[in-house]
Amino acid sequence: ALASPAIAQSMPKIQWRCTSSFPKSLDTIYGGAEDVAKYVSEATDGNFTIQVYAAGEIVPGLQAADAVSSGTVEMCHTAPYYYVGKNPAYALGATIPFGLNARGMHAWLYYGGGMDLVNEFYNSEGLHYIPAGNTGAQMGGWFRKEINSVADLSGLKMRIAGLAGNTMSKLGVVPQQIAGGDIYPSLERGTIDAAEWIGPYDDEKLGFYKVAPYYYYPGWWEGNLILNLFVNNDKWNELPDAYKSLLQTAGRAATIEMLAEYDYKNPTAIKKLVQNGTQLRPFPQDVMQACFEAANELYDELNASNPAWKKIFDSQMAFRGETYLWNQVAEYTFDTFMMVKQREGALATDG
Amino acid sequence: ALASPAIAQSMPKIQWRCTSSFPKSLDTIYGGAEDVAKYVSEATDGNFTIQVYAAGEIVPGLQAADAVSSGTVEMCHTAPYYYVGKNPAYALGATIPFGLNARGMHAWLYYGGGMDLVNEFYNSEGLHYIPAGNTGAQMGGWFRKEINSVADLSGLKMRIAGLAGNTMSKLGVVPQQIAGGDIYPSLERGTIDAAEWIGPYDDEKLGFYKVAPYYYYPGWWEGNLILNLFVNNDKWNELPDAYKSLLQTAGRAATIEMLAEYDYKNPTAIKKLVQNGTQLRPFPQDVMQACFEAANELYDELNASNPAWKKIFDSQMAFRGETYLWNQVAEYTFDTFMMVKQREGALATDG
Repeated sequence: ALASPAIAQSMPKIQWRCTSSFPKSLDTIYGGAEDVAKYVSEATDGNFTIQVYAAGEIVPGLQAADAVSSGTVEMCHTAPYYYVGKNPAYALGATIPFGLNARGMHAWLYYGGGMDLVNEFYNSEGLHYIPAGNTGAQMGGWFRKEINSVADLSGLKMRIAGLAGNTMSKLGVVPQQIAGGDIYPSLERGTIDAAEWIGPYDDEKLGFYKVAPYYYYPGWWEGNLILNLFVNNDKWNELPDAYKSLLQTAGRAATIEMLAEYDYKNPTAIKKLVQNGTQLRPFPQDVMQACFEAANELYDELNASNPAWKKIFDSQMAFRGETYLWNQVAEYTFDTFMMVKQREGALATDG
Repeated sequence: ALASPAIAQSMPKIQWRCTSSFPKSLDTIYGGAEDVAKYVSEATDGNFTIQVYAAGEIVPGLQAADAVSSGTVEMCHTAPYYYVGKNPAYALGATIPFGLNARGMHAWLYYGGGMDLVNEFYNSEGLHYIPAGNTGAQMGGWFRKEINSVADLSGLKMRIAGLAGNTMSKLGVVPQQIAGGDIYPSLERGTIDAAEWIGPYDDEKLGFYKVAPYYYYPGWWEGNLILNLFVNNDKWNELPDAYKSLLQTAGRAATIEMLAEYDYKNPTAIKKLVQNGTQLRPFPQDVMQACFEAANELYDELNASNPAWKKIFDSQMAFRGETYLWNQVAEYTFDTFMMVKQREGALATDG
């Protein structure tokens, strides 16, 4: 018997289409799907190829998951919190307000049973979930005026979506849904008072500092953000085992790669923003506390009404208490010392 | 023409041996090599297999890199700072005192040109470097008596190696080289006064708290620790492109996987340690400062004498200042708020 037919059978020629929820201009996030496609194509010598399409090329950005579950395309690259309108449980594979940081999310997903839990839910929606990217903690967004107290949030028209918008609305914020390209003119005209986007690298390119100079932190609604692939359930189940394994390995690799890219690009961008007049501001502690309480109120409502949400949320929150306990010891103390040295100028290398 | 012969040629049957520097009992670190082997074997349907051997099975743990450069085995899984005796520059692909944290190291390696820089050096030693694991920030180790000032370090016999040992010795510590299995009896008998190992999950299993109850943090000499594969240069160059790509993708995946596993296991372990009587102590700030200055003195000496070191060090340190600047904004402020909530009991889910 010849060995080659067996090899050919397990490594068949497959060409898939992956629709991204993101434009090419968001090169770091959009690049997550291209990283996966590259890793998969290279490792199979071009036998398994994935063609990535930017948002709108074949499917509108926010309909990516629908296009996958209906079988229009085999897969998409997206952020699952875009689909909280279908079910808030979607958000638990992306990020939730006052949730986990990036390392916590990876620990829970990859090792703490999170992946199986979220996939039990996503599978019921016709989708198989594979993490493929993380932005790290995001910024709190751009404000035309300073926020000095909880009262300043009342009546504020802010471009913010999903569970973060639901949380903010409990404090009087009026959440607005506005596409990325429309944020700048809306802030300039005063149609909105504030807008959250991503972090320094992506935000700097859009020039928000010119029309809304106060740049708040942290984005407590995105202590991390997982980007992910959704693969059509049937297409996933038909995939040879070798390709299933490779796609998951490539997703892990793309996750660490995207986070590395953001962590490398953001420092330069935030320095440029400050040089150009951006006013960095931490959210006041009473604002943070009020938002934390508003998020907990929202979670009480969801836990009472949505069993699919509660099952995943309970697991993620049990680990949340654990990870922030341990984080305080070695990691935080090391980082704190190094940050003090940075502020003292003791890490400077330019003489 | 038939397609299968071309496929067979690009996906040849290859069986490699990988010698680990670690025993199987260090399951999280040892598992990094097994993760890579699993990802590679699965993705190639068993055509590219890597057999992992524990330290001492075929090669002693600290001779792993030598066994690779000489061609005894195709690859090893190790920590490159074990080889600072050959050249201190080896450490720059692992970790150095007061260096980068895990995300900073990944950003510098994967996106900031670090990988090419360290490989230029490692290649000259006959080795090709691929990151495959990270422990995160480690603990400062176990002490029989409290350390209340810099003076308490003088004459202290401590199990600590490499550049950390060189740094400590500037403050009067007498560094000791002791294998993992000999640490407990040495601490018990008082042959040594202190010992550093890894972090809660690994340390707890060895029971150090019974004989040296003061557990200090942070391990400023290991703000992160990259574990890595070294592949023999010639074997690397002969590898088909598909396998080269896959091995690097698998290394990225193993890196995020090991960090996730530690981040998931350490919280439980540190709680168990404290329940068993471990006394957690932060290093006093003046001790941290004296160690920081001693490390800088060591770096001045290496920069003046070792061009291979200096070329890599300059790049890593230029990014160090950048990453700890940006880290202070969104990540640190978010983490700080969440840790305060953890201490307040506001993250508890059992009540």
